[in-house]
Amino acid sequence: MADVDAKEIEDQIAAQGNVVRELKGSKDATEAQKAEAIELLKELKIKYKDATGKEFAGGAPQRQKKEKKPAAPAPAKKDKKEQAKAEDASKTKLGVTTAKEDNYSAWYTEVITKAEMIEYYDVSGCYVLRPWSYAIWESIQSFFDSGIKKLGVKNCYFPMFVSNAALEREKAHIADFAPEVAWVTRAGDSEMAEPIAIRPTSETVMYPSFAKWIQSHRDLPIKINQWCNVVRWEFKHPTPFLRTREFLWQEGHTAYHLAADAEKEVFAILDLYAAVYTDLLAIPVVKGRKSEKEKFAGGDFTTTVEAYVPCNGRGIQGATSHHLGQNFSKMFDISYEDPEKPGQKALAWQNSWGMSTRTIGAVVMIHGDNKGLVLPPRVASIQVIVVAVGITANTKPEDKTALLAKTEEIAATLVAAGIRAETDLRDNVSPGWKFNHWELKGVPVRLEVGPKDIAKNQALAVIRHSGEKRPLGLDGLSGTTEALLNEIHNAMYEKVEKLRDSHKIVLTDWAKFVPALDEKNVLLSPFCGEPACEDQIKTDSTRTQPEDAAGVAAMGAKTLCIPLEQPKEPLPEKCIHPKCGKAAKFFALFGRSY
Amino acid sequence: MADVDAKEIEDQIAAQGNVVRELKGSKDATEAQKAEAIELLKELKIKYKDATGKEFAGGAPQRQKKEKKPAAPAPAKKDKKEQAKAEDASKTKLGVTTAKEDNYSAWYTEVITKAEMIEYYDVSGCYVLRPWSYAIWESIQSFFDSGIKKLGVKNCYFPMFVSNAALEREKAHIADFAPEVAWVTRAGDSEMAEPIAIRPTSETVMYPSFAKWIQSHRDLPIKINQWCNVVRWEFKHPTPFLRTREFLWQEGHTAYHLAADAEKEVFAILDLYAAVYTDLLAIPVVKGRKSEKEKFAGGDFTTTVEAYVPCNGRGIQGATSHHLGQNFSKMFDISYEDPEKPGQKALAWQNSWGMSTRTIGAVVMIHGDNKGLVLPPRVASIQVIVVAVGITANTKPEDKTALLAKTEEIAATLVAAGIRAETDLRDNVSPGWKFNHWELKGVPVRLEVGPKDIAKNQALAVIRHSGEKRPLGLDGLSGTTEALLNEIHNAMYEKVEKLRDSHKIVLTDWAKFVPALDEKNVLLSPFCGEPACEDQIKTDSTRTQPEDAAGVAAMGAKTLCIPLEQPKEPLPEKCIHPKCGKAAKFFALFGRSY
Repeated sequence: MADVDAKEIEDQIAAQGNVVRELKGSKDATEAQKAEAIELLKELKIKYKDATGKEFAGGAPQRQKKEKKPAAPAPAKKDKKEQAKAEDASKTKLGVTTAKEDNYSAWYTEVITKAEMIEYYDVSGCYVLRPWSYAIWESIQSFFDSGIKKLGVKNCYFPMFVSNAALEREKAHIADFAPEVAWVTRAGDSEMAEPIAIRPTSETVMYPSFAKWIQSHRDLPIKINQWCNVVRWEFKHPTPFLRTREFLWQEGHTAYHLAADAEKEVFAILDLYAAVYTDLLAIPVVKGRKSEKEKFAGGDFTTTVEAYVPCNGRGIQGATSHHLGQNFSKMFDISYEDPEKPGQKALAWQNSWGMSTRTIGAVVMIHGDNKGLVLPPRVASIQVIVVAVGITANTKPEDKTALLAKTEEIAATLVAAGIRAETDLRDNVSPGWKFNHWELKGVPVRLEVGPKDIAKNQALAVIRHSGEKRPLGLDGLSGTTEALLNEIHNAMYEKVEKLRDSHKIVLTDWAKFVPALDEKNVLLSPFCGEPACEDQIKTDSTRTQPEDAAGVAAMGAKTLCIPLEQPKEPLPEKCIHPKCGKAAKFFALFGRSY
Repeated sequence: MADVDAKEIEDQIAAQGNVVRELKGSKDATEAQKAEAIELLKELKIKYKDATGKEFAGGAPQRQKKEKKPAAPAPAKKDKKEQAKAEDASKTKLGVTTAKEDNYSAWYTEVITKAEMIEYYDVSGCYVLRPWSYAIWESIQSFFDSGIKKLGVKNCYFPMFVSNAALEREKAHIADFAPEVAWVTRAGDSEMAEPIAIRPTSETVMYPSFAKWIQSHRDLPIKINQWCNVVRWEFKHPTPFLRTREFLWQEGHTAYHLAADAEKEVFAILDLYAAVYTDLLAIPVVKGRKSEKEKFAGGDFTTTVEAYVPCNGRGIQGATSHHLGQNFSKMFDISYEDPEKPGQKALAWQNSWGMSTRTIGAVVMIHGDNKGLVLPPRVASIQVIVVAVGITANTKPEDKTALLAKTEEIAATLVAAGIRAETDLRDNVSPGWKFNHWELKGVPVRLEVGPKDIAKNQALAVIRHSGEKRPLGLDGLSGTTEALLNEIHNAMYEKVEKLRDSHKIVLTDWAKFVPALDEKNVLLSPFCGEPACEDQIKTDSTRTQPEDAAGVAAMGAKTLCIPLEQPKEPLPEKCIHPKCGKAAKFFALFGRSY
C-alpha cells in the first residue's frame, strides 16, 4: 500500500472534485462541509504531486447528472396534533427533511447534525462528538470496561507519540499503516530532530514495554487496555463516526505463555463485542474470522463482529479481536526462558482487540428513520421524556400548576427507579414542537401527561421506534416502564434481525452474485480463501453504475467474514468465482461494506 | 514568552548537558532515561539555532562535584522477618535504595518505576502510565465525573487537532501557548497544505462551536467537559506526572448568560477540586486566586487549589478553575440578542477548568516514604493485600491447605463488602518478599494470616503509612476494615496537614523571606499584586546555591495563590518587597513551586 499509484490518486481527485462541486451547488451544505471537501481535494493534489513529481493537470470535470431533488416526505396522516408538529418543524427547520430512501447520505448528515450528535469542524476528517452522541460512547465504555475487568484486564495509558524506529519494527504492520500516519515535525518554532508519529494503533507503542516487563513465564499473562484517540490520516472521503481521521476507541493488548490461552481470549473478547451490539445497541451481528486479505496487518488471524445496514444492504465491521501469534513478540523480542524447556527461549503469544466510536455510526444507520435518530434504550442518555400536554388558553392557572407538578413527580419517580427520565417543561415551544424535537433526537419513550390522563391515573407512552401509543397506569409506573424499555430493546433487535436474516442468503451461483448484491443482500458463498481470488471477486462485482441515492454502493464486494457458524447447506466443492477453480474451504460472507 | 532569549536557552543547554553527563555516569540510569535526556539536549540545540541563526558553540562542561552516594538506609531494627525481607530485597533489587531526604529526585524515579507506576519511553517527555498509576486516575475520574454530572455538566469530545486560524484567535492566550505547540505537517508521504496544531488546551478548539450553538439566551448555560490528552512541548526538563509533553486531563468549558452565574460555578468547581485532594487523595490544599502574573492567559481570573510537598517545602498547583469573562466570547463572537435589552447583542460569560494526571505525582511526592509509595486508601486499586504467613518446612500439607483456604476466604469476605482486597498466594517468593513488594507499591493495609492468628480468630493488620501492627478479629472483619481504611485516610491527611500548617507561616519581613523559603516554608506575605513586583520577588529570592539533594529548590518564589481565606493577622500597609513601596492588597501565599 505504500506505493499508491498515480491512477488511483487521479480517480480519488476526480471523485473528490465531484463532491466539491455537488456541495457548492447544494443549499443544504454547510460552509464547514464545503471547506472540508475542498481541503481534502487540495491534499489529494499534493499527494499526487508527491507521488508523480508533477502537478495534477486535471481532466474534464465529471459532472454527474443532477438528480431531481425529492420533495420532503409528506406526512401520511395529518391529525390536528401532527399538523401542528409539521408547522413547528418547518418553522424552525427542526425535522429531518430528507427521506432515508431518497438520499441516504443527505439523510445521514441531517440526522447526525439535527439530532445534535455531531458538529462539523474546520479540520478535514475531524468532527465534534456532542454530548448526545458521546453519551452513547459512555454507555458502551461502561459496559465493555466492566466486562474486560472481569476478565482481569487492567486499564493503562501509553503515549500517543511513537518514534519511527518503533513504528517500523514489524514490516507487514507498518506497510499497512504508513500511508495514513500523521507526523509531528515541529514544536513551537523549532524543527524536531526526528519527526514523531501519532499512533494509528499502539502495537508498536506498547510492545517495547512488554519486552521489558516479561522476563519470566511468571510475568504472564499481561492483560492491558486503554481508552484513547488514534489518528489515521485517510485520503478517502471522510464520514462522521464511520471514517474519521481521529477517532476514539479502546485497544486491548495481551500476552500469554500458551497459544491456546491467547486464542481462547480472542473469542472471549469477541463475545463481549457481540454483546455490545446485541445487548446494548440492539443490533444483530455475525461473528466470524477475517479472510487473509482482510485480516489485521502483522497478525495471525482476526475475528470480527459484522453488522448489516438494511437500507442499503451494506455490511459494517463492528469490532475486531486479533490473535497476533508470535509475530510481534519476535520483532520486539518479548521473550523469556521456556519453563518447559530450560535454557531455551520462549516467545509470548499475543492478542490485540479494538472497538471504536464507529459503533455510534452503526446505531444511526441501522436504527434511524425518516423522523431522525432512534436510540436503543440501553444507550439512550434520556430514555423517557415526560411532556405535559393539553394545556390551553382556557386552562386554569392552578390546573396548569398541578399538571406541571404531576409531570415532574412522574419523572422523579422514574429517576428514583434508575430510569433516565427527564421533563421538557419549556413554555416557549408547543407540545408538538417538543414531540418533534425528541423524536428527532431518538428518545425511546415519550410520556405524555394531560389532564385527561391524570383523571384516569395514567400517562400516554409513545414509542419512538414503532410510533405505537400505549396508556400506562401511574401505579407501578417504574416497573411498567422498565419492562417497556426492555420490550423496545427486543423489538428493535428483532426488527433489524428479521431484515438482516432475509437478506443474508446462501448463494452458490456466480451469475446471481452481483444482482443479489444490488438487491441489498449479503451473500454466504463458497470461497477458496485466497487474497488474489478475493481481489478478483471485488473487481468483478463492482457495478458500472455509480452509488445510487439510497446509498446502495457501486463498490465491489469483499468478505465481511468467514462466519464461525457455517450455513447448514453442504459446502460446494469449488470456490464461487468461476475463474478460480480452487476448492472451497468454507462459506464466506460477502458484501459491499463500510 | 514567544521570544525566548538566547541566554536562557544557553543556560538550559548547560543544565541539560549536566543532566546527560550525570546519567551517563550513573549505573542506576536506564537507557531510556539517557536517551530521553540526550534527545532533550538535541532539541535545545536546535531551538538555539532557530533563535540565533547559529549552531550552539558550547562552553566548558560544568561538571558538578560528585556527591558521595549515600548507602542504602540500614533497617533500624532487624528481627528475623525483616532480615529475610532485606535479603529478599537486595537479591531482587526490589526495594527503594535511595532515601527521600538524601536524593529526592533519584528517590522519586525509583518509587515510580519500582512501584510499577511509570515505564520510561523512547519519546522524550512522554511516559507510560502503567495500571498501578492509571487506577488512581480512574478513581479520580469516577469521583470528579459524578460530581460534575450532578452540576449538569455533560461529557463530549472535540478533535485534538486545531487549525492555526482558530488557535490564533485570542492573542494573549496564544502568546502563552505558542512556544509549546506541536505541529503536524505531514501525513504518510504528503506534506499538508497547512500545518495543524495539536491542542495544548481546547478553548480555541471548542469556542467556534459555542458560537454556532448559542443563538439565544435560551441556549445557555452550556456546560461540557472532556477527558482527553493534550500536548505541551515544553523544553524544560520533563518529570513523570509533573511535567510531561503529553498528559491526560479533564477540561470543562461552560458559558452563561449572567456573569454572576459563571463566577458561582468557578467556585463550585474549585470546591470539587479541593474535594478530590482532601476526600480522595488525603492531601490538604489551600484554595485561592492566582495573581495577575500567574493567571490563565486570556482569562479574567483563575482560582486554584495548592498543595504543599513537605520534604522539600515546595508548592504544587493542584487544579485550576478559570473565569474567562467575555474575552473569548468577544474573539469568537459567542453572542446573542440580550433578553434584557432587545435589539442589543449580549456576549456569553465563560469558564474553563482543568485537572490533570499531575494529581498522581502529588500523591507520590507528598505521601511516599523511604519504603516506597504510600497510597491513600480511597484511590488504591488494592486496599488490602492478604498474605498467608507462618508456613514452614514442618507445616503439614493439610494445615497449609487450610491456611491458604482461610486466606482466600478472608479476601473474598472483604471483596463482597466492596473492599478492594486481593491475596498474594505466590509460592516462589517468601512472605518477606511479599511484604516488601506490597509496601513498595503502597498498599494501605497488609493482612497477615498465620496459624496462630487463625487459632485466635484474628488476622494481623499492618498499616502502610505508619507501620503500626494491629490484630483484627475475624468476626465483623469487613466493618472493622472499612473503618480502618477511613481511619488511615484521616491519619494520612492529618499528618500532611500538620507538616503543612507548621510550614505555612505569615511573614512580613523581607529579610526573613529567603531564609524562610530555604527552611521549606511557604509564606503568607503582604503583596501589591503587580506582575513586575512578582518578577522582582522571584529574582531576589533565587538562591545562589543549586538545588540540593533533598530537592529544596534554588528557584525563586512565586505566588502560589491569594488564599480565599486570608490570615487573621492585620494586613500590613506595604507590599513585602522593600523596593516596591506599593500598598499591600492582600496576603499572597509565596513559595518555590513545581
